[in-house]
Amino acid sequence: MPRVTAEHREQRREQIILAAMACVAREGFHKTTMADVIAASGLSAGAVYGYFRSKEELILAIVDYVLSHLDQALGELLSLEPVPSPIEVTRQLTTRIVEHAEAAPVDITKVVVAAWAEAVRHEQVRAEVGGRIRRLRDRYVVMIRNQQQAGMIDATADAEQVAKSLFGVMPGFILQRLVTQDVTPQEYAEGYAALLQAVARPGPGTD
Amino acid sequence: MPRVTAEHREQRREQIILAAMACVAREGFHKTTMADVIAASGLSAGAVYGYFRSKEELILAIVDYVLSHLDQALGELLSLEPVPSPIEVTRQLTTRIVEHAEAAPVDITKVVVAAWAEAVRHEQVRAEVGGRIRRLRDRYVVMIRNQQQAGMIDATADAEQVAKSLFGVMPGFILQRLVTQDVTPQEYAEGYAALLQAVARPGPGTD
Repeated sequence: MPRVTAEHREQRREQIILAAMACVAREGFHKTTMADVIAASGLSAGAVYGYFRSKEELILAIVDYVLSHLDQALGELLSLEPVPSPIEVTRQLTTRIVEHAEAAPVDITKVVVAAWAEAVRHEQVRAEVGGRIRRLRDRYVVMIRNQQQAGMIDATADAEQVAKSLFGVMPGFILQRLVTQDVTPQEYAEGYAALLQAVARPGPGTD
Repeated sequence: MPRVTAEHREQRREQIILAAMACVAREGFHKTTMADVIAASGLSAGAVYGYFRSKEELILAIVDYVLSHLDQALGELLSLEPVPSPIEVTRQLTTRIVEHAEAAPVDITKVVVAAWAEAVRHEQVRAEVGGRIRRLRDRYVVMIRNQQQAGMIDATADAEQVAKSLFGVMPGFILQRLVTQDVTPQEYAEGYAALLQAVARPGPGTD
């Protein structure tokens, strides 16, 4: 296949996904129709159906797109050297989520919440979202083992359990950012810092 | 109004909400139609419309119902004396969520996730869900101040910030329980315990 055609197809595909994401951020997956996506993409119906034969295929492509972007954004963070502390990870994780949400033409966190709801009732979406969560947690596990080696986390703790708890940072932040609209990465990290110091400071602070 | 009629109306209303919740847990808010709810409730269309004039009204009633039940489940926990530690709160919070989800005819956590998605794109639902989150966090603040007085959390920490971070425990747990289906309250609390001890144990454990 000539390279320009493959690239062109990739660009067109992304154009459709971005148009569909704008619809989903506004209306959710169910209310969004193929006709909405076609109108938003500025392409012909034939062109759009040439890439996605059904709304089903398009939903899976969108879920894959937003979660792989989130994954990418967090990926660099998880391989930083030297390994950051759990508090620093919380601060950077939430900062990158906000940066990504604000830089993109569509707030991808809105699509992420729609994907969670879809995952609850749609077997294939659940498999896709579940697989992504598992892969992200696997990367957390690697980072947590480094934190254990660096003496930041009890070496006897089960890294997989810690990864599940650490994963909770993200949905909790995304949800409050979109719904109560009153959280910032800085204060979210500070709140965690106070919780993390809960055991360290059993008495009133010395400062 | 005669008491029996008020009670009867309340029962009927709950019967419709429960039927609608079963539909929403399966299909989400958007795919659920008034016709689905009427069929599931076993009542006539006239009876159902007598309680909820539109799907809009019904959505708000369901969101109110599930969130007030969750609130109730967590309420007792938040006023326990003596005040439990942050780790114990995590364990009990997640345990009660699972108990409630499993005891009810409909897994209310599925409806909760649908409500989050609805809150992102629907102004009135956002106000309702946001108000509930704020009230729950206000109760966390009271508990956190007690934990500060008991010397469990740094007395200089901003209790409202800590409440926002602590709030994240719940969505993180609900999401993994429904999507990856591999978290238990016990291990979730243990994961948090390890994170909470992160600062307390800067070196390898002595055990």
